[in-house]
Amino acid sequence: MSETMKLAEYLFTRLGQLGAGAVHGVPGDFNLDLLDYVEPSGLLWVGNANELNAGYAADGYSRIRGIGALVTTFGVGELSAINAIAGAYAERAPVVHIVGTPNRATQDGRVTVHHTFNDGNFRRFGQMHAHVTVAQTSLRDPLTAPQEIDRVLQQCLIHSRPVYIEVPVDLVGAPVRAAGLKTPVELPEPIETLAVSEAIEQVLAKLYAAKRPIILFDGECRALNISKDVRSIAETTKVPTWTTAYGRGLIDESLPNFQGIYKGAFDSESIQSFFNGADLVLVFGPHFSTTNSYALSAKPRPEISIVFSDTEIVIDGKVLRDIPARLATSQFLSQLDASKIAQYSASDVQSLTWNTQQLKSFSDIAKDEVISHSSLWDFFAPFIRSGDIVMGETGTAGYGVREMRTPPNVRIFVPVTWLSIGYMLPAAQGAALARRQMLAQQNGTANGEEKSGRTILFIGDGSLQMTVQEISTMIKHNLDIIIVVLNNDGYTIERAIHGLKESYNDVAPWNYLGAPGFFGAKAGAFTAQARTWGELEKVLASKELSDGTGLRMVELIMDREDVPKGPLAALMGREKKRTQGLEPKRMVIP
Amino acid sequence: MSETMKLAEYLFTRLGQLGAGAVHGVPGDFNLDLLDYVEPSGLLWVGNANELNAGYAADGYSRIRGIGALVTTFGVGELSAINAIAGAYAERAPVVHIVGTPNRATQDGRVTVHHTFNDGNFRRFGQMHAHVTVAQTSLRDPLTAPQEIDRVLQQCLIHSRPVYIEVPVDLVGAPVRAAGLKTPVELPEPIETLAVSEAIEQVLAKLYAAKRPIILFDGECRALNISKDVRSIAETTKVPTWTTAYGRGLIDESLPNFQGIYKGAFDSESIQSFFNGADLVLVFGPHFSTTNSYALSAKPRPEISIVFSDTEIVIDGKVLRDIPARLATSQFLSQLDASKIAQYSASDVQSLTWNTQQLKSFSDIAKDEVISHSSLWDFFAPFIRSGDIVMGETGTAGYGVREMRTPPNVRIFVPVTWLSIGYMLPAAQGAALARRQMLAQQNGTANGEEKSGRTILFIGDGSLQMTVQEISTMIKHNLDIIIVVLNNDGYTIERAIHGLKESYNDVAPWNYLGAPGFFGAKAGAFTAQARTWGELEKVLASKELSDGTGLRMVELIMDREDVPKGPLAALMGREKKRTQGLEPKRMVIP
Repeated sequence: MSETMKLAEYLFTRLGQLGAGAVHGVPGDFNLDLLDYVEPSGLLWVGNANELNAGYAADGYSRIRGIGALVTTFGVGELSAINAIAGAYAERAPVVHIVGTPNRATQDGRVTVHHTFNDGNFRRFGQMHAHVTVAQTSLRDPLTAPQEIDRVLQQCLIHSRPVYIEVPVDLVGAPVRAAGLKTPVELPEPIETLAVSEAIEQVLAKLYAAKRPIILFDGECRALNISKDVRSIAETTKVPTWTTAYGRGLIDESLPNFQGIYKGAFDSESIQSFFNGADLVLVFGPHFSTTNSYALSAKPRPEISIVFSDTEIVIDGKVLRDIPARLATSQFLSQLDASKIAQYSASDVQSLTWNTQQLKSFSDIAKDEVISHSSLWDFFAPFIRSGDIVMGETGTAGYGVREMRTPPNVRIFVPVTWLSIGYMLPAAQGAALARRQMLAQQNGTANGEEKSGRTILFIGDGSLQMTVQEISTMIKHNLDIIIVVLNNDGYTIERAIHGLKESYNDVAPWNYLGAPGFFGAKAGAFTAQARTWGELEKVLASKELSDGTGLRMVELIMDREDVPKGPLAALMGREKKRTQGLEPKRMVIP
Repeated sequence: MSETMKLAEYLFTRLGQLGAGAVHGVPGDFNLDLLDYVEPSGLLWVGNANELNAGYAADGYSRIRGIGALVTTFGVGELSAINAIAGAYAERAPVVHIVGTPNRATQDGRVTVHHTFNDGNFRRFGQMHAHVTVAQTSLRDPLTAPQEIDRVLQQCLIHSRPVYIEVPVDLVGAPVRAAGLKTPVELPEPIETLAVSEAIEQVLAKLYAAKRPIILFDGECRALNISKDVRSIAETTKVPTWTTAYGRGLIDESLPNFQGIYKGAFDSESIQSFFNGADLVLVFGPHFSTTNSYALSAKPRPEISIVFSDTEIVIDGKVLRDIPARLATSQFLSQLDASKIAQYSASDVQSLTWNTQQLKSFSDIAKDEVISHSSLWDFFAPFIRSGDIVMGETGTAGYGVREMRTPPNVRIFVPVTWLSIGYMLPAAQGAALARRQMLAQQNGTANGEEKSGRTILFIGDGSLQMTVQEISTMIKHNLDIIIVVLNNDGYTIERAIHGLKESYNDVAPWNYLGAPGFFGAKAGAFTAQARTWGELEKVLASKELSDGTGLRMVELIMDREDVPKGPLAALMGREKKRTQGLEPKRMVIP
């Protein structure tokens, strides 16, 4: 007889092998038995205040660590979390959603148990999850459970998207064969076919023939695991290289040819003209949602693009299939002869400014002037350090962060596609924990015994209200997180879109800096408020803020109608005109 | 040409006609145009802190007012709310979920807009909602929109279950024919067929022949709109009448033959013996989920039951179809000759005690003894007044409230089937608002200008943490709500089920009474804490608590392992034995 272990041990041990050092979630009657096995399997249990927050936290964790997991209970728990799972699907975060379900006897007997619709149907919630996950399994048989678990987890890794595993209570402790754990769950090895070499040959020929080639890389490079190759390609080719918002932070942004985000119709005329003058755009890991592509205006023309995505290369609109991105970029890089690439003259690139533009400093500005987006991100830029995780929640915060200059080795979270406000606060908890666990693993220390590197979250008041209770989880796990609340008295991003002065865009006024006290911070966390540049300067100079530990909070009092330049400013301008009767219609949202 | 109005005006005017005096929700880019029409149509806009909470609030509102509505935005908003919609489906709350969706051009063009999966598919979220609603429409055509809206709203009323309406941004202001509003949306009038009269004849014959008839009514009587008839039937027949937890408060519980909840295997032996000695059980509006039927043990035997449900009567297990409950109970009542019903002798009913049992008073108890469930509900019973709404959240609070004696004309919310913790706090906001609007309408005063009657919420600390931010909405709308927090340092109901001492059943310790201050109560709300009976006595005697206005909060410090008698005590007993090694296995959840 072969060696056995309990099903839940198999599941959590496997998750641990893949890098999920923590499981987020909320206990519930159908998952309690599962939870017995989390910490004995070497994973940290993080009990969030609710399931949506747990889902967001697992998503944030997964984007740092390569995989994240949450456990919820049947029906009520899993549906509370489903919007987070949908967001992970949209933005390719590899989250494993494990649901504790009723005993098989209860399900087969169609018992009218609680957490159901009292109709004996136990399949609805799995069917709903099929819309938002790439693989699902409802475990039924201990003999096949290990391979089912492995199949689903492999799909999670292949697609970098969420998966769904139902574990009935009576299977949690069932013996399963342990042998599977000896074979790692890995991505399928690419096959080096003739088609691949021919495609790369074509790509290189196009590149060598181009007079004005450029690179545009996007955030799916993370999911495709090609960020390092893309960095090397940018460095080796030296061609002007843009990112999207989603791609911010994935490569070393101090490279001299790195140009920041290409903002399409919202970029300066000289940049637009440069970008549109290209005769070849190498596109890596594209994700052209409206928000990530400045209302599609930053999407390069297909007829001059070579696009590297999951399993194909698209050249001039022609699809070459079955060419995995990992293989394609590595072959591209190994065969690349940089000397054959056309060089730009200095005068060609003089309009490009990302790394050379001067940031404003506090000496340039009146100290008693109130804080505004016009200069805010220049002042925060020097506060950011290599190793930080920087997050800008959907809203004015996110649109500010996405264009803030940051040093190398900073992970950046900004609005991409799902844009579910409330996401970033729990995601910050998950991301900060993932970073701490990674550092602990690298340094061979136990979890939680050292500084985790900073996670800095910029978030508006309306967003903060959505999921505020996770501040308590940050405190409980003593995570090194700085929360900067942009208190602009409501949903300013919505005011810019429609309803500038409407009360439906108001939120209730809270005492935001009372959060650490309310949520149980015993020692008293660092908090500060700033309304003017002078006050902000003092706050940012505080060592307690920049080098302290645990939770720190800063509240910035800002104008209700103040937004960063770019799409929000365009919307706000139009909406101001509309409300003054100068424009008949709202602007279509970019 | 016939008179027209804008589509959104039609929708909100119709909702107002049906009694939805408030719309809950959260603004989002695809619903802002819709929100422009809420208050001009005479409805109150209630902006909740997040969409799940808005769904819960709309559910609470609907159970008081007969209909409730929420507006969310496409994708992110609607999926955040979907667990609340599912709960409304499970427990038959008539909630209208209105979703603002992208322009038809955006949808038809499969534009990769934000709040999607970036794949041009706009139908997924509607498909997910089809699992949890009884009718759905995605409005596409102004010519058919009014009848689509009316069809869906009628289904909401017929089934007393949620429905789903998608409104694309570009249809919000489209002109639609207004004439439909002159025809009320109503339930279809029942048809008085021969089958109905024959069925009622059979029912009456059975009743007159029975020697020991009893009545058991359940919470679906509210959805079937037969609570008044059932009250009259109980009063006229004088037979011993039980309710379920779900039916608590639906009839006048001071009737001498009212016996409280039938608790099945968890009831006293004498009550069980009396109930099981019946030769006929008239069952009205059944909903035998495990939680509502004490693990199915309170479900009467089919062979002696006559069951009145939506559209059928079941006699001895034989289904007589197409007999609407409203018609059946009214015919039953009009033909009933009470003199033909067997009368119980006094000695037969001497074991029945609901209205005669003596409640404990503070003079019976040591003042310095710590508060416990053993007597807590006896002490709260006299605090409850006619006109109150009393809510006990899933957890020890709900199991306590469901057996607390209350005066006539009290609406009671307790755990029934969905049991999604976190539900009751936002539901309390919705219920309190619905009550205030009803009183205002009855008294002909404007909304919000008078006392609303009290809403008293009993809730555990773990539940409170889930949705705590709605305290801010209570404050903003100045609702008369008393929150009693049972602080037992974690998920005590889960400790009883499994994991008595496990840390996964802990929650972070908060400063609960700091909530009014944190959430923006300017005047300073009444708060108090009690750990002993003496402290509780003082708190309950406070006029500020009992007769004050606005938000008031009481925190009760309770033992981690203290639970009310009944199923939780049985579970806790078993779990204590299991953790001491005296029982090999956990108990199956009743």
